[in-house]
Order: sequence, then C-alpha cells, then structure tokens
Amino acid sequence: MSDQTFTHPDHASISSFGPARATVSGTPMNAEELAQTHAFWRACNYLALGMIYLQDNPLLREPLKPEHIKNRLLGHWGASPALAFVYTHMNRAIRKHDLDAIFLAGPGHGAPGVLGPIYLEGSYSEIYPDKSLDEDGLQAFFKQFSFPGGIGSHCTPETPGSIHEGGELGYVLSHACGAAFDNPELIVTAVVGDGEAETGPLATSWHINKFLNPVRDGAVLPVLNLNGYKINNPTLLARIGHEELSKLFEGYGWTPLFVEGSDPDTLHQAMAATVDHAVEHIRAIQRAARATGVVERPRWPMIVLRTPKGWTAPAEINGHQVEGSWRAHQVPMADVKTHPAHLQLLESWLKSYQPETLFDAAGAPVAAIRQFTPTGLRRMGSNPHANGGRLKKALRLPDFRDYGMEVPEPGRIEAENTRPLGVLLRDVMKANLRNFRVFGPDENTSNKLNAIYEVSKKFWIESSLPEDADGGELAVDGRVMEMLSEHTLEGWRAIF
Amino acid sequence: MSDQTFTHPDHASISSFGPARATVSGTPMNAEELAQTHAFWRACNYLALGMIYLQDNPLLREPLKPEHIKNRLLGHWGASPALAFVYTHMNRAIRKHDLDAIFLAGPGHGAPGVLGPIYLEGSYSEIYPDKSLDEDGLQAFFKQFSFPGGIGSHCTPETPGSIHEGGELGYVLSHACGAAFDNPELIVTAVVGDGEAETGPLATSWHINKFLNPVRDGAVLPVLNLNGYKINNPTLLARIGHEELSKLFEGYGWTPLFVEGSDPDTLHQAMAATVDHAVEHIRAIQRAARATGVVERPRWPMIVLRTPKGWTAPAEINGHQVEGSWRAHQVPMADVKTHPAHLQLLESWLKSYQPETLFDAAGAPVAAIRQFTPTGLRRMGSNPHANGGRLKKALRLPDFRDYGMEVPEPGRIEAENTRPLGVLLRDVMKANLRNFRVFGPDENTSNKLNAIYEVSKKFWIESSLPEDADGGELAVDGRVMEMLSEHTLEGWRAIF
Repeated sequence: MSDQTFTHPDHASISSFGPARATVSGTPMNAEELAQTHAFWRACNYLALGMIYLQDNPLLREPLKPEHIKNRLLGHWGASPALAFVYTHMNRAIRKHDLDAIFLAGPGHGAPGVLGPIYLEGSYSEIYPDKSLDEDGLQAFFKQFSFPGGIGSHCTPETPGSIHEGGELGYVLSHACGAAFDNPELIVTAVVGDGEAETGPLATSWHINKFLNPVRDGAVLPVLNLNGYKINNPTLLARIGHEELSKLFEGYGWTPLFVEGSDPDTLHQAMAATVDHAVEHIRAIQRAARATGVVERPRWPMIVLRTPKGWTAPAEINGHQVEGSWRAHQVPMADVKTHPAHLQLLESWLKSYQPETLFDAAGAPVAAIRQFTPTGLRRMGSNPHANGGRLKKALRLPDFRDYGMEVPEPGRIEAENTRPLGVLLRDVMKANLRNFRVFGPDENTSNKLNAIYEVSKKFWIESSLPEDADGGELAVDGRVMEMLSEHTLEGWRAIF
Repeated sequence: MSDQTFTHPDHASISSFGPARATVSGTPMNAEELAQTHAFWRACNYLALGMIYLQDNPLLREPLKPEHIKNRLLGHWGASPALAFVYTHMNRAIRKHDLDAIFLAGPGHGAPGVLGPIYLEGSYSEIYPDKSLDEDGLQAFFKQFSFPGGIGSHCTPETPGSIHEGGELGYVLSHACGAAFDNPELIVTAVVGDGEAETGPLATSWHINKFLNPVRDGAVLPVLNLNGYKINNPTLLARIGHEELSKLFEGYGWTPLFVEGSDPDTLHQAMAATVDHAVEHIRAIQRAARATGVVERPRWPMIVLRTPKGWTAPAEINGHQVEGSWRAHQVPMADVKTHPAHLQLLESWLKSYQPETLFDAAGAPVAAIRQFTPTGLRRMGSNPHANGGRLKKALRLPDFRDYGMEVPEPGRIEAENTRPLGVLLRDVMKANLRNFRVFGPDENTSNKLNAIYEVSKKFWIESSLPEDADGGELAVDGRVMEMLSEHTLEGWRAIF
C-alpha cells in the first residue's frame, strides 16, 4: 500500500523476509474489502503509536510539537501491529462466519495492539464513557496509557474483552483452553509470542489439544506470531527453519498453517484465506463429532504468522534497522521531545497511517471502520465470555458441615483428612455437571479424593488400551482433568 | 530369559507391547556379553526390589518371612527397572568406548533403579563403608532406603554420582545441559520420565540442543523412557502414536532413536546397538566440529525407550495387570506382611532374578558383575563431575569494593544501580573465561548489565541474518546464555 512506503519502498530489504508464503492459497477479498480491512488495521496501528507517544493533538490536526509528546515514553510497539492484524482478521471472520469469538494476547506488553481495535469497535467507550469516540475521548484514551493513574501496558483486567494479562509469560494457551471448556460455540483466538513460546508453561501448553472435547468444548485457535525477536535477541522458534518448526507443531498434534511475509496487501489476503480455512476446519471437526457423537482427538488448525517485529515502523532510524529488528521492541525513538528530526520522523510515521482518512471531523472512526467491526456482543471487547462475571453461575453447593467427621472425644476416631473432601467434591460435581471440573496433576487418587470418580471420570481422548478398562477411570466426557503440568492446570482455571 | 517368565510366559500379553521395534538394527553382543549384561540388570532389579521390601534376609538365604519385610513400605518400583536398564547399558558403553559419562535420573522417586547399580559398582561402599559389598552391608543398604534416619526415595544429594534429585519434576535436561557446559569429553545421560515430560520446565528444555557447542561443550544423551503411566493415568507422550512422537522430537531438533519392546534379550541387543550408534554419532559430531572449528547446531541423537512400567514385575496380582500398568508405579503389593500368598509371590518375584547367581557366599557381587562395571572414576557413581566439589574451581574475583560508586554527600550524584554490577560481571567473566557464564532471560541489556558483552557475547548457533551483525551481540562461543525460560536458566546452573 502506498501509505506503507514512506520509509521502506522495498520490504524485501528486511532480509528475514523473502517473498510472502502461505500454506493456504487464495485471495478471498475483493478490492473494497481489502481496502476496508487495511483501513481498520491502519487505524489500529495509528492508535497504538498514539498511545505510546501522544498526550495531545491526537489526530495531528496541527503540526506535531514537543509538548504533544508524553514526558515519559513507555509501552511496546514491537508486538502491537501483529496483534492488531490478528484482531482485524478475526473481526472479518466473526462477521463472515457469525462467530462467537474472544481474543487473548500472549505477548507481554502488547496492549497497544489490542486496546486500539477494542476502542475502534466501541467496546471501550461503553465501559469508559470519558474515552468517547471523538477527539476528546481519543486524547484521554492516548494519555491514560502507561501514565500515572492510567492503565498498564499489558492487557490488564480493566481491559474490556481481556481475560489474559500477558504479564507473566507462558499462560495464553492454558487460559484459552480454560475459556473454551464447556463453551461449544466459542472460538478462542490465542496469539502466542515467540518470546513467550520459549517458556516452560507455554511449551507444554501446546498439548491442550489433548484435553478439548470437540462435542462439548469450544475451540482454541493459536496464532504463533514469529516476529523474530525478544527484547534484544532473536527467538529460537523464528530461526530453527521451516521444516523443524512444521514438524514440531505436527508433533504437538496441530495442523500448522503458515502465513509469512511483510507486504500488507499480500498478507491481508493470505491471512483472510487462512483464517477462513481454519474456521471451516474447526467447524467441520465440530460438526462431524457432534453429528456422530464419536470423540477422537482432532488435529486442530493453528496459524504460524511470521511478520516483521514492529511491522510498519520506519525501516531505519539513525542507520539502524528498526522494522523487523529487536530495536522495534519497545519505544523505537525515545528522544522525540528533544530531537527535532526524530519528532518529524514520528509525525510522518503517524501520518503514514493516513489518520485523516480514518477519523471524521469529530474524531470518530469513519463509516468504513465502523462497518468493519462486528456488532453488539459479537465484538471481542464486549463478548460476555471475556468480561468477567457476566456469565458466572453460582455453584449448587451442599452444606460443607454435612461432610465433617464426628469427633465425640479427642483421640478416639481415626480418619483420613482428605477423603471427606473427596466426597464433598463428588457431590459438588454431581450437582454441577456442566460448570464444574476438577484439575489435578494425576494426584487425585493418591490424595484420597477418588470418590469423585463415582460421578465423573478423567478426561482422555488419546488412544486407549484394553487394560484401561480395569480401573483406568478414563472417559471422553470426563470432567476430571489430569495432566502433569501444574502450570497448565493453573491456566485452565480461566473458565467463564 | 527363562528367569523372566515366572508369571508372564508371553510378554505379548502386555497389549501395549507388540513385537520389539528399534530404529537401529543389530545384535552387537555375543551370548556371553548378553548374559553378563542381563546378569547386571537382574542384580539391579533384585536390589531395587530388596530396597523397597526387605529389612532382613537380604539374599533370601532363608525362606521369606513377615519379619523380613519393612513395617512401612515406601518407594517406587515403576520407573526403577528402566532406569537400571539405561545405567546398565551406559556401563557397557563406558567400557567399550572409554567414555567419561554421568547419569541423571529424571523420573521422580526413581532412586531404587539408580542406587542398585551404584552399589554394585562399589561407588556406594567407598563413601558409606557400612554399606559394604557383603551380606551385612547389603542388609544395611536395603534397610536404610525410605526408612527413618535413612535415605530418601529420590536420588538425594547424598547419592554418589547424583547431581539431580528428581523431586521437583522437569529439570533433568536443564541440569544435564549445565553439567555438559565446558566439559567437552563428558556425556551426560539424562533419563526423562514420560510423566515429567508433561511439565512445562521439561517441555521447553528439549531446546537445550540450541545451547550446546560441539567444540567446547560435552554432549547430553536424553533417554525418554515411555513406560506409559504416571501414578494412576496414562501419559500423553506414550499414547500420541509413533508418527507424532517422532515429529515432535525432530521438531525439537533431535535425531530420535526408538527402542521399544518388553523381551529383555531382544531389548538388551537393541539398546546396546542404539547406545553404540548414539555414542558414535555424538563422537562424529564432535570430531567434525573440533577438526574444522565450524560450529553449527548438530541434530544430536536421543533415545526413546518404550518399556513396560514396572518391567519384570508379576504380570498380574489379584487379577489386575501389574507389569505394564500404572499399578506398578509404587509398591505393587502393600500387604505382603499380612497376606501369605502375597509374601510367597514376592519371594518368587525376588527369586526370579536368581540372586544365588549374582552374589557369592559372602554376599558380594560375583565376578561377572564386578567385571561388567567400569572402574575407578569411570564408574558413574564415582565420576568427579557428579560428585559435588571435586572439580570445583574458585573464581578469580576482583574486589567488589572497587566497583562501588563514590557518594560524597547524599542526593548529589546520579547513577543506575545495576550498571556497576555489569562492569563487575564483565571483569569476572574476563578473568574466568573457562568457568564462568551468565544466564539471563534476555534481560541483560534492559537490566543494564550489558558491559559484559565487551568480553563475551550471547551464545547463538541458530541461523544468522545480516542484521545480526548490527548490535546483535551473538557468537557461537558466547558465554552469556539467554533464553526466555527461567526454568531452564535455573537448571543450567548445575555446572561442575
């Protein structure tokens, strides 16, 4: 797109990016839809950059001056454009396929890439009316970001539509899986950063596909964003090569779909085709399982999105590569308040997104952007599954006193202290078979909680052996979830 | 072997085990070596079982009676035979290839399978003379196990040759990698349990192969023991099928070598051929890198050993499968003191290892077993790399006071608090370039410790890009180790 070329006419100069490559071919969008999709993403990127830098002049209606810039620049640009890119394409898919979907941003400090689309779709203003969809609201929205008394640079709990903060890296897939449990229509989009992908909790959580039942649970759609860099280092998964990467995810039991490149138009078409394909694959898996009742582990789709770190940033600043480099991780230029040339570069960078085409005279998103977003509860920022408490149901709980041991006098009776807890859990499970599960690292029986198996077995959809019938307590619809990863168990509790 | 058939004439009845299968073919051992190898393993298994059950009558020289049995039975049989199997085959390989090797047992509570061979090779008695190589010593050795005032059922620090306790699951590969750093001749055998393989720390630690330099570091030989079960559950990796499993490890960058089956003779030959092959592969990688100085990431070999849980236990007890089942995890029969038929079954189980052929009149291992073990410091229980402190070298440290900031009066000077630490670390690195490394989760620069890069860069042997030359600070011989897994960094510190 012409607006992307202001500092890098040739994206092939990003040496990590050759020609675009995608597993799924096709150009599903016509020119109009492509332009609309790109406009939404441009608006997201403009907002992300504005959040990081601006405390005033939010629509650049006057020339950018030092006093418009925040005194203390905080926030992370690097992961933001790709997060917004995924959000953008999920918006398109939600409308096209009428999806019930939510969005989890794994990369740390990626909030600018998520807050932007949530603001554009109107979810933000509904909860925070002072961050209205006009120039004043936009200024307040920019200024509060990473600002004293404002909001954090993670997707903190006050972010509409966020159930995953991303501060402690490694839990995005576990949280996503927890959110999908017992929500059969839900698609949980989970963007995994290639930095966090190196953590232990994340590395084992690819195995969540062994714990999702295609009949009763929703789906998790992981999007691994290989932007190539952590803070100052390349990432392992971005450099191990296509073949190993592909085998790794097939070995984890997924069907990886690659989308790789840096040219926005090409990538928009590739991502749209890929998300369509993934959604249709997910729906086909669910339809088949739900029609037949046969539960086997599907090879769910996942997307590997390889895009430049800090995508659409200036190609170079002070002779150093920025877009596609670890230098794009945080604030790419810290000295804009005191360095006039850098202030000017920031202004042209902001203008490269053509804000005048994205916001109307009052500062509200133009019709093309408003029409691009899903509406009502289909907006990912407003989806009740991701807004704490809206779908919460009280458990039917028996009186715990009924499970106490009678102790007529000290030292007379003998009992194991956890066994009565197992009986209580059994009865809670029995009374709440649709919104209660027990998670454990294969210790329920050794911890004497096994009364629970009278009501529900351990979930298992891997292959079975004849001897499993003898006390294995395994079932494809079991509600006791056992895996020897306490990190994953912890993450699964993100249930709404 | 005839001695294995006392309760299970047909191993094919373990339905998870069809015919034996191995990636590497060959039967490298003649009948005599096979018999000797099997005798050593039988002795290990006898000792493991004795540790769990016996407080007296350690050589079964009189009929087994209830009073010979410990009052409180603790310990884990399940992982022990396979651990001893690997130890046995490493013993053979150490002698055959003159290896400098150590042994790390990942599976929790696997100590019986490790203590046995360490006792047989004499390492144990040298440190604990009361656990001598005779009947009295054997009795003391049995009795102390999981006994008040005795030793734990993990490979606790007092175990000769152990640098990995295995209590908190998930660190065996990280510890193994740490032990291999800067010990170019060392081969670190690391047995990974399929339970612990589900943990996050373990799942990401397969990536250690991206941090070992074939010129200056030793090698880690992982042996994933798929015995199929955790405490009460199947394990994920044992059930995902051969193709996914193979892709998973190729995706992690290893060359997986499968050894699968349950017939001891067949498995001894397969394992001997496989370990020979792996050792030769490791040596070939190292020779090539050391001859040319060209450092690229090798696709190191790793072994997938699929054997029945509780291998060589009775096939069935009380109508329930034991060998090859989760029921073999801990103490397969807890009631031998009070249940005469079970006491008898235990006796025949113990006798199935033919202790009378393994120990002489005094209770010492017979010549065939003594000759089977490596000698001196080549014994894995006596290897100085795995006996804390023997190879420890003091760091050459400058006076830390020289790095303090002068503060002539309060509130006058301004300085960053971690930058001087970076300068100190730089100088420590400079003075200790062979036995000092810095580990960090890609935070050294953001934490202002980057002075260290003046002396040594970040280790990196993945593919490189032209832009890495611009401030990437990467080098194939870098001594700053950065990975975004704090679990792995923690584990790497196991350096001797």
